[in-house]
Amino acid sequence: MTPLRPIELGLRIGRLEAGPRDAITDVDGVRVGHCTLIDPERHLRTGVTILEPCPDPWAERPVAACDVLNGHGKSVGLPQLVEVGEIETPIALTNTLGVWTVARRLAELTVRRDPAIWSVNPVVGECNDGAMSDIAAFPITDDHVDEALASASSQVIEGDVGAGAGTRAWGYKAGIGTASRMGAVDGEGYTVGVLVLANTGRREDLRICGFPVGQPSAAAPEEGAAGSIMMILATDAPVESRQLGRLAKRCALGLARVGATASHGSGDFTIAFARRREGSVRDRDLSPLLAATVEATEAAIVHALFASSEAVDRKGRRVPALPAEEMVARVLRARAALTGDER
Amino acid sequence: MTPLRPIELGLRIGRLEAGPRDAITDVDGVRVGHCTLIDPERHLRTGVTILEPCPDPWAERPVAACDVLNGHGKSVGLPQLVEVGEIETPIALTNTLGVWTVARRLAELTVRRDPAIWSVNPVVGECNDGAMSDIAAFPITDDHVDEALASASSQVIEGDVGAGAGTRAWGYKAGIGTASRMGAVDGEGYTVGVLVLANTGRREDLRICGFPVGQPSAAAPEEGAAGSIMMILATDAPVESRQLGRLAKRCALGLARVGATASHGSGDFTIAFARRREGSVRDRDLSPLLAATVEATEAAIVHALFASSEAVDRKGRRVPALPAEEMVARVLRARAALTGDER
Amino acid sequence: MTPLRPIELGLRIGRLEAGPRDAITDVDGVRVGHCTLIDPERHLRTGVTILEPCPDPWAERPVAACDVLNGHGKSVGLPQLVEVGEIETPIALTNTLGVWTVARRLAELTVRRDPAIWSVNPVVGECNDGAMSDIAAFPITDDHVDEALASASSQVIEGDVGAGAGTRAWGYKAGIGTASRMGAVDGEGYTVGVLVLANTGRREDLRICGFPVGQPSAAAPEEGAAGSIMMILATDAPVESRQLGRLAKRCALGLARVGATASHGSGDFTIAFARRREGSVRDRDLSPLLAATVEATEAAIVHALFASSEAVDRKGRRVPALPAEEMVARVLRARAALTGDER
Amino acid sequence: MTPLRPIELGLRIGRLEAGPRDAITDVDGVRVGHCTLIDPERHLRTGVTILEPCPDPWAERPVAACDVLNGHGKSVGLPQLVEVGEIETPIALTNTLGVWTVARRLAELTVRRDPAIWSVNPVVGECNDGAMSDIAAFPITDDHVDEALASASSQVIEGDVGAGAGTRAWGYKAGIGTASRMGAVDGEGYTVGVLVLANTGRREDLRICGFPVGQPSAAAPEEGAAGSIMMILATDAPVESRQLGRLAKRCALGLARVGATASHGSGDFTIAFARRREGSVRDRDLSPLLAATVEATEAAIVHALFASSEAVDRKGRRVPALPAEEMVARVLRARAALTGDER
Repeated sequence: MTPLRPIELGLRIGRLEAGPRDAITDVDGVRVGHCTLIDPERHLRTGVTILEPCPDPWAERPVAACDVLNGHGKSVGLPQLVEVGEIETPIALTNTLGVWTVARRLAELTVRRDPAIWSVNPVVGECNDGAMSDIAAFPITDDHVDEALASASSQVIEGDVGAGAGTRAWGYKAGIGTASRMGAVDGEGYTVGVLVLANTGRREDLRICGFPVGQPSAAAPEEGAAGSIMMILATDAPVESRQLGRLAKRCALGLARVGATASHGSGDFTIAFARRREGSVRDRDLSPLLAATVEATEAAIVHALFASSEAVDRKGRRVPALPAEEMVARVLRARAALTGDER
Repeated sequence: MTPLRPIELGLRIGRLEAGPRDAITDVDGVRVGHCTLIDPERHLRTGVTILEPCPDPWAERPVAACDVLNGHGKSVGLPQLVEVGEIETPIALTNTLGVWTVARRLAELTVRRDPAIWSVNPVVGECNDGAMSDIAAFPITDDHVDEALASASSQVIEGDVGAGAGTRAWGYKAGIGTASRMGAVDGEGYTVGVLVLANTGRREDLRICGFPVGQPSAAAPEEGAAGSIMMILATDAPVESRQLGRLAKRCALGLARVGATASHGSGDFTIAFARRREGSVRDRDLSPLLAATVEATEAAIVHALFASSEAVDRKGRRVPALPAEEMVARVLRARAALTGDER
Repeated sequence: MTPLRPIELGLRIGRLEAGPRDAITDVDGVRVGHCTLIDPERHLRTGVTILEPCPDPWAERPVAACDVLNGHGKSVGLPQLVEVGEIETPIALTNTLGVWTVARRLAELTVRRDPAIWSVNPVVGECNDGAMSDIAAFPITDDHVDEALASASSQVIEGDVGAGAGTRAWGYKAGIGTASRMGAVDGEGYTVGVLVLANTGRREDLRICGFPVGQPSAAAPEEGAAGSIMMILATDAPVESRQLGRLAKRCALGLARVGATASHGSGDFTIAFARRREGSVRDRDLSPLLAATVEATEAAIVHALFASSEAVDRKGRRVPALPAEEMVARVLRARAALTGDER
Repeated sequence: MTPLRPIELGLRIGRLEAGPRDAITDVDGVRVGHCTLIDPERHLRTGVTILEPCPDPWAERPVAACDVLNGHGKSVGLPQLVEVGEIETPIALTNTLGVWTVARRLAELTVRRDPAIWSVNPVVGECNDGAMSDIAAFPITDDHVDEALASASSQVIEGDVGAGAGTRAWGYKAGIGTASRMGAVDGEGYTVGVLVLANTGRREDLRICGFPVGQPSAAAPEEGAAGSIMMILATDAPVESRQLGRLAKRCALGLARVGATASHGSGDFTIAFARRREGSVRDRDLSPLLAATVEATEAAIVHALFASSEAVDRKGRRVPALPAEEMVARVLRARAALTGDER
């Protein structure tokens, strides 16, 4: 049974309109694939998630930017992305010690296509799933990359899949989540889509739609030194890389709305891209897209929590799923109390 | 009558302990002064706020860092602050077009003390109070700087004072606010204090303790193109400037908790300092201070809203005070509903 | 008598072609003006130099970027320039303690033009002329700004003028210098122009066309703690701000060719702008413009040395002019020896 | 026969004193190893160079910083290095498409040592040797990393070794070079050491000791789109990471002295480290170390050229060695002409 999203349980996140899928794939051409590796005997809960920004990034070279809220992470490819304001491969996510294998494979796939290619800059992000998976076994292989690529689709699967198989956030099992929000510039509507790999946050800090639903819990697995959140932002607005960087910075604000404090070991990165288009947007018209970024990020993180299922960590401790229905009931009750509609 | 703070109305912000004053002056040696310029005939609601990091910053040179969430602002002095990781003057806040007058005066006061001084780097931040004050009259003079300095005290006055005389935030009259939170590192407690000059946010986005109390209101003055928030962070933890920069970045997370989206024209800066001390803190022990920064910022902003009183803008439109008691009642009611304590 | 430039003495700097004026004003629309304040009785050798990027920067908003090689300086306006990638006023240069007066005046002039303007971001750079001028007297006034603006012309006066009246570099009297170099992209020629205010370098490090002409000299005034160089780059190539930032970074390489080491107190900044144009340049075609930037910077600095005349510092010590003819003779002789054309 | 260094041919580079080895290993504890892979049948000229900053970087965590002059490169590990100001592994250099294999192996070696390690941030830089080596064959393996590590020594081998086996610079065969310079702070002498992997520059731009020895040559292999230079800086001065970043920025100035323009495709990075020590250096005392950085970089690059031997590129074209003796003779002749000592 597919888990229900908040909206299906009656809870709308934010005040802006979502795109048709409420997913990063509402930006035309974006596709997402996963390869999930769950093997209790080998103590593995990990995987690879790949996001294709467009059918042929090497040829199209989407505009790109990034933001580093907390650089305590092993992301690959950011210095060149910043220098030239472009990406030239799919963007991949995996576990902390898997990034180099994945990057190498993405490079190899590009080079194989054309013997004239001597240089390619793959972009890979990571979260540390070592509490739930035997990360030191270096389980990720080329095949997992290929499989994730082969499964890419505009229908994003959320939750305990791909790079999200072994992550947890705010004391609950977490994983992949996505959302989108619309922003209008000069009467034209643009989409901002976000996909997150969530592995951060303490249970007592959790806020859903603002409501501080988190409660201290001695039993909850602690956020360790090896948290992280990777946020990928896509837009169909015709922005240059500097402007896209302004959008990317707002992902931190959406993250904060859910209650993150970006603790020392939580590598918190945003990788952003926009497909090249004719036209341009003036900075003074960017505010609706900035607001859309904040809300899409907030929603994507909540979606990651809602879509994930209970699991067991390497020490045999239960990592609970977020009790979605109960949470929504509490939030709706509190919202009614807040507005005085308490009948 | 001094406005009540949330805690006095029964509402505690965050889960961490505040310092004795719940103010940036809980960091030893910090003092804050204001010069407020309210003159209805000249359409003026503006002023200068000055924060002294220590008795003699020129000699002591506190460690400094900054974070720029949105660089759309006229702050003075940041490039050198970043390069050498120090401040050497008090930090001032004023209106957008007053920064250069204030910076010049701060420099002059330093140079006057010692003829051997040829170079000094004053640090000044600003918010645009042009909707409430005749900013184009360039009303700030040297005397206002001197007066703010002369009034510096460890008792911070909040609300419609100094640089906050003419600001508004989240659709309400705002101004200066401050708070502090404690964080323990290796068993020793340190203080993180924050002072804000708030001039940003849309009413419908306002969140207090997370609770989305904001409501759409056609009547509310729009957040204009010229918002901004200046955040000043102080700590007594023995951090180097790189570490202090990590703290400074978390102010954006506290700001986001109140519902900001850092729109295009909202110059959102954090200026941070730490007094030199023996010892050092390891990065892996910083997380309690990072969390303290988030909460202190959130609280300082809410304090700015609670402490400000209704005023009238230049077009004669009412800029209401936040209805503090009603808000607190709503939040407490919602909190009870959220936790099930609804008797 | 106007001092001769190296080319007039038979010495060509670099291998690329210069524009018609070999000046920043080879970029169409750029104009430069000076107000020079030399008053031996008041111990003043200072001034204001203003560069107009185009006839109406407020309306046109040229694309802008900057590079900070050494942030030990009091430049005004850089954070907003970086955020929005634009300038909206002329760019001014003056002495270290004059920047705020000049910035304020530039803002005032903009605001006076249109009562709807509440916010403006003037950009001002500085060098410290305190060794030659009574900087602590804060001699710069609004009138000096107005006069520099009024004198703006496409014919740049070099040497001991404007902000360069009291600067010295590599142990010689220095000041304002300018140059330009051409770069071809896809068969179309573009201009890169540079203007410098030079106040840095030790005599023994001086290199002209590479040749290490500098010699240790106990008599030479030491480079003090308050050096600096401001470099302004203009181009007519259709670049976005990120690309312009790549050009700006190359000014440091031109500076290094003359022998700078960017010592602690030498605030070394580049402010770059490009007038908006149709079309765009791909990054992979930028290299000729990057090389043109290096050479134009090198040439502009040498021009500043060649154009300046002997003066006396505040302590009555002679600050010699570079012995231009002798230097050129030495360099030409060495060049002949290097290439074997020693007949 | 070991190639001679410039000093052995009578040419001293710069005016500062070198350390005993004139190498990065003059910084105590630093060791360098190479694995060189030259196989004409497989068209391979590539390898791995590893620099150990200290005997146990995981435990000692040397202070670190970096500077990115041109981010067009695939360096691994820089975001975390910047965030926490530390390195925790050896620093490796290899070819562009080998970085991920090398990074993965360095991580694996760390993790193997201690099962409690879940996260490690290897730092790897690269140059593109694709013109001389079949880079697309991905020839680098774990064994090459292990071999380079095993060979680490305080005696640095320069030239066509390790990652430098297949690089060329300024139109000549190049590779690994190293140098050191001393700087005094408060009477105490500190060492700045630099090691470079040089793969950049055009023949006509080459400058040795400033002298523009380069000459246009149609026959010289063009600097392609895939140049680069990696610079590693080490110091025994007790600096914090912000200060170390100031040093790292000066490597670009040393690079410029040799005639680089940092063209679009030339990824030019500096990775810097300092071993933790008691004490501290004030910024205002840093200038001797900044100058030492410039000179050590200049010398290291020239050393790389002097130490490399003629080779053949993949298309069978000769890549000549720099004609060291002839060059030195020319420079000495020109120097004599410059100073008038022409007898």
